[in-house]
Amino acid sequence: MPLSPEQQAEIARLRAESQPTRRATVPGLEEILYEPIEVLDHGFVRVIDYMGDDGAVVQAARVSYGKGTKKVSEDRGLIHYLMRHRHTTPFEMCEIKYHVKLPIFVARQWIRHRTANVNEYSARYSILDNEFYLPAPEQIAAQSRSNRQGRGETLSVAEQQRVLDLLREDALRAYRDYMELLNEDEAGNVVDPKRQGLARELARMSLTLNFYTQWYWKTDLHNLLNFLSLRADAHAQYEIRVYADAMIGTLERWVPMTAEAFRQYRLGGAHLSASGLSVVKRMLAGETVTQAGSGMTKREWTELMSVLGREG
Amino acid sequence: MPLSPEQQAEIARLRAESQPTRRATVPGLEEILYEPIEVLDHGFVRVIDYMGDDGAVVQAARVSYGKGTKKVSEDRGLIHYLMRHRHTTPFEMCEIKYHVKLPIFVARQWIRHRTANVNEYSARYSILDNEFYLPAPEQIAAQSRSNRQGRGETLSVAEQQRVLDLLREDALRAYRDYMELLNEDEAGNVVDPKRQGLARELARMSLTLNFYTQWYWKTDLHNLLNFLSLRADAHAQYEIRVYADAMIGTLERWVPMTAEAFRQYRLGGAHLSASGLSVVKRMLAGETVTQAGSGMTKREWTELMSVLGREG
Amino acid sequence: MPLSPEQQAEIARLRAESQPTRRATVPGLEEILYEPIEVLDHGFVRVIDYMGDDGAVVQAARVSYGKGTKKVSEDRGLIHYLMRHRHTTPFEMCEIKYHVKLPIFVARQWIRHRTANVNEYSARYSILDNEFYLPAPEQIAAQSRSNRQGRGETLSVAEQQRVLDLLREDALRAYRDYMELLNEDEAGNVVDPKRQGLARELARMSLTLNFYTQWYWKTDLHNLLNFLSLRADAHAQYEIRVYADAMIGTLERWVPMTAEAFRQYRLGGAHLSASGLSVVKRMLAGETVTQAGSGMTKREWTELMSVLGREG
Amino acid sequence: MPLSPEQQAEIARLRAESQPTRRATVPGLEEILYEPIEVLDHGFVRVIDYMGDDGAVVQAARVSYGKGTKKVSEDRGLIHYLMRHRHTTPFEMCEIKYHVKLPIFVARQWIRHRTANVNEYSARYSILDNEFYLPAPEQIAAQSRSNRQGRGETLSVAEQQRVLDLLREDALRAYRDYMELLNEDEAGNVVDPKRQGLARELARMSLTLNFYTQWYWKTDLHNLLNFLSLRADAHAQYEIRVYADAMIGTLERWVPMTAEAFRQYRLGGAHLSASGLSVVKRMLAGETVTQAGSGMTKREWTELMSVLGREG
Repeated sequence: MPLSPEQQAEIARLRAESQPTRRATVPGLEEILYEPIEVLDHGFVRVIDYMGDDGAVVQAARVSYGKGTKKVSEDRGLIHYLMRHRHTTPFEMCEIKYHVKLPIFVARQWIRHRTANVNEYSARYSILDNEFYLPAPEQIAAQSRSNRQGRGETLSVAEQQRVLDLLREDALRAYRDYMELLNEDEAGNVVDPKRQGLARELARMSLTLNFYTQWYWKTDLHNLLNFLSLRADAHAQYEIRVYADAMIGTLERWVPMTAEAFRQYRLGGAHLSASGLSVVKRMLAGETVTQAGSGMTKREWTELMSVLGREG
Repeated sequence: MPLSPEQQAEIARLRAESQPTRRATVPGLEEILYEPIEVLDHGFVRVIDYMGDDGAVVQAARVSYGKGTKKVSEDRGLIHYLMRHRHTTPFEMCEIKYHVKLPIFVARQWIRHRTANVNEYSARYSILDNEFYLPAPEQIAAQSRSNRQGRGETLSVAEQQRVLDLLREDALRAYRDYMELLNEDEAGNVVDPKRQGLARELARMSLTLNFYTQWYWKTDLHNLLNFLSLRADAHAQYEIRVYADAMIGTLERWVPMTAEAFRQYRLGGAHLSASGLSVVKRMLAGETVTQAGSGMTKREWTELMSVLGREG
Repeated sequence: MPLSPEQQAEIARLRAESQPTRRATVPGLEEILYEPIEVLDHGFVRVIDYMGDDGAVVQAARVSYGKGTKKVSEDRGLIHYLMRHRHTTPFEMCEIKYHVKLPIFVARQWIRHRTANVNEYSARYSILDNEFYLPAPEQIAAQSRSNRQGRGETLSVAEQQRVLDLLREDALRAYRDYMELLNEDEAGNVVDPKRQGLARELARMSLTLNFYTQWYWKTDLHNLLNFLSLRADAHAQYEIRVYADAMIGTLERWVPMTAEAFRQYRLGGAHLSASGLSVVKRMLAGETVTQAGSGMTKREWTELMSVLGREG
Repeated sequence: MPLSPEQQAEIARLRAESQPTRRATVPGLEEILYEPIEVLDHGFVRVIDYMGDDGAVVQAARVSYGKGTKKVSEDRGLIHYLMRHRHTTPFEMCEIKYHVKLPIFVARQWIRHRTANVNEYSARYSILDNEFYLPAPEQIAAQSRSNRQGRGETLSVAEQQRVLDLLREDALRAYRDYMELLNEDEAGNVVDPKRQGLARELARMSLTLNFYTQWYWKTDLHNLLNFLSLRADAHAQYEIRVYADAMIGTLERWVPMTAEAFRQYRLGGAHLSASGLSVVKRMLAGETVTQAGSGMTKREWTELMSVLGREG
């Protein structure tokens, strides 16, 4: 359970409050505001704040004076047009802020997206909680043979158990040693008055990379879509993909037209290379094209056939 | 008057609407939401949307679960601490969006701030209005002698008149020729059916740099403060400074604690160089220091004496 | 002719110098270093400096200790792989710096690419030259009917002449008035000692948008490719496209493998939407698909047929 | 020793090569190009490439056609002027690329500087080396009492030993378990053929935060100075400060005039708040000012007195 009763109470209190505003407001997103969506064994994503809606995209594209909304069908058409032609700046006019709790090794992937604002919990300043990630058994898999940076088949049950035991032991020992180094309990009280504690900024180095950290993460809609298209992709590591999936749920509540266009033109589409396009044209003209005659490498050919849903 | 009756009606309609929200809401800023604040002869700034408040800065600094707010005095102290020590990331957690109407030559200075999102009215796509900037007489001044990129004393009344006449004539002729090139009236109807019009993306090049353009401009609070500290500065060109001044007014409504800290540590403070600090220390120790004995150039010495409010 | 004899001499002098370096060096790009490539009637692009080569992309991708080069074929394969899968960070490891002279209305489009470093000639500080852009006759075209932000058919010769006359007259008058407002000649000497001149930061507003400005513009290879893919596109305005075309020439000299991959996967490829991909699959399966049965709008259908090289 | 003989040979080979170039070249930096500067127990920083020199800053500030260099004294004056008045864009015209080996917990601080390009060694793709950071005894210190995010006095020798033992044991065990999970040796060979290995992207989570990672890190001179002013500061954690110190050494070789100005106006200077400035003015006027009469908090007052080198 990721939240303490105090934290739950704080969230409940926030959710009970309501103010009038003249700003663009999205009831579907308000419904889940502040609520943690559980991800992995101790993590979560929760929407803390947002600015704008589908209408704000339209408004910016038209640099108009009002809310920019004409008929729903026109707005939808414009948003699809913008997405199709990669007119990205109107999508930058919406902003969203998340509070995320995530394992450190996931945070290290996530932070590579530099076009966001981040405030992370500081382990120089505070003590980390005793919470670490252990994969669910069905996620415990071998190195992939075809993809050098992915995982392949699931391990045997016995080996899964061995993995979990090792990971759990290492994390438990790491935390025990972390607390011993600090010579503090979680409330900050000295444990052994005869010893000095080690500075927090040093003690943290003994923790393993599956410990949870947390941050506020804020980005605009355009950069959120970039993040989601990379991290909700099948090639992304499972442990970050589940966060992206949860965030796509919030995207659909927030900007349903944009989410639809995103599925249509980004997530569900495909990019053809010059050679790939040429192959498709030849095939459509009735020619039988083989890899050998395509000018493509074997790997590219396999990727193209997979995109086109063909045997190859 | 910068707005048409239709635009005023649209704004009035927007301002009349109100929705409930669970988000952080700032009544003082809501009061002026959507309303144009007039700047220069035809320009304006208006706040279109915002995210967060002083509490959101505090919340991010603490990576807390609730609003992050403790006592008002603690929040104020924390915000001052963050500003003093240039802990900038918590200020990035607030966002504001403006609609700005401004002369093109001002837009060209403004756009150098790259850490914002911008959607500008497109003169490839649409026809620009017949609105151009003419300085108020008291702004019509000679090149500064001391500052190679500033203005000095005001011109004589006769010369002011001559300047205004030239600027007005040039802009009027530019717009007349622009319309003739387009062969369209402002409603988009063909004027002379025997002629083709020139493409908009070409015709616009005949306009002068004092014509007004407009854009949506969105930035986070940290980058807004950077913009304001540079553009509200006495060395900034008057025509952009008046926009910055108007925006400081909106800052004070939005995040009063941050605005106060900004005045205390950024706008009202001073930066001393290593040599400048050494001079101050020697002076405080009772020594009489002269430029010659300071190790500073004449220019630096003058700047230091001016900061310290001394004759030099 | 964009350069004065003094400028030409300065460039010749720079080109005559040579130093030894241990850095990655590209002879093909060194050949044209500092040399202006003429663009439009008075503009140019010239490469001022660069960092890295194709090998630096490979090196970063491998985070290796040496230059990263194995066999040429392996390097080429890796660069194609990175481009195909949009692994963009290794391309950020190369950097290039241009000096560009361009009309102000082109500069205003260009500057929207925010991920570059820019130093522009300051008309607050200095006096602009009497150089303005006039389109070549074959570029003087009407507003497009199909594309609201493009140009269509060329105007008649008589109308071309009328356009050129108007643009030339307006620019000449603008410059004459600019100089009169300044009361300075181009060398900075006072013309009429009985008058004060207007401050430069004000006088510039009387110039038209086709006057030339210039800047140093520096970006990394990844962002350069983004710029080029948008600005070398058929939908870009001709006056910026010619700059992009000239820069693609420098790209091919600098990083030939990356340039090849860029043509293969970005410039020459095509993006299919989810619906578009579904149409292609149905067609490949032998089905006759019509717009009505495609689930696509007429506009999207036309775009897809055009990509596939079919009548539609 | 951070480098293997193969790596050393590769670096020696690179350093032996030399090509002619027309680019701005800095002999003092060429001297150390590619050479690792040792930092901490297994880390290093090495300059891999650079673009520009002090002259390039001057050239950009003047948007000139040649090298921009006039007399040395004028260039120096201009660079000091730019630094003093925070005209930052000319400094963005120089670029530098480092290869850095650093503990993961340091990398996590470093990466917060978002305005750089980064390629990190991928532990999804490759196996990390068995190298982890252990602090030197004199760095093993208690939590600071005055600064909630720093370290205070050094621990007793016995406690130092205890800390080192714990950190070493935890890291050794973590690596042993990492290898066991992978079921590979460092050359990538299967160890126990009866077992499957765990995917690399999962196995890495068992490592502790003091393991070393490495990356290519590239930034422009302006952002490098920002990084250095924050990370070479006395408040920065020791383990990142030593990297910043090593990089200041490379800065002085690369752009000596900029480095001098940086020391004068950034590192060696001080920022006074509005209240602080007012206190200094009153003191200079002969008044005896106390904290009570200063309008400052106790903490601010102490900070000011420390800046002014006074007892307080």
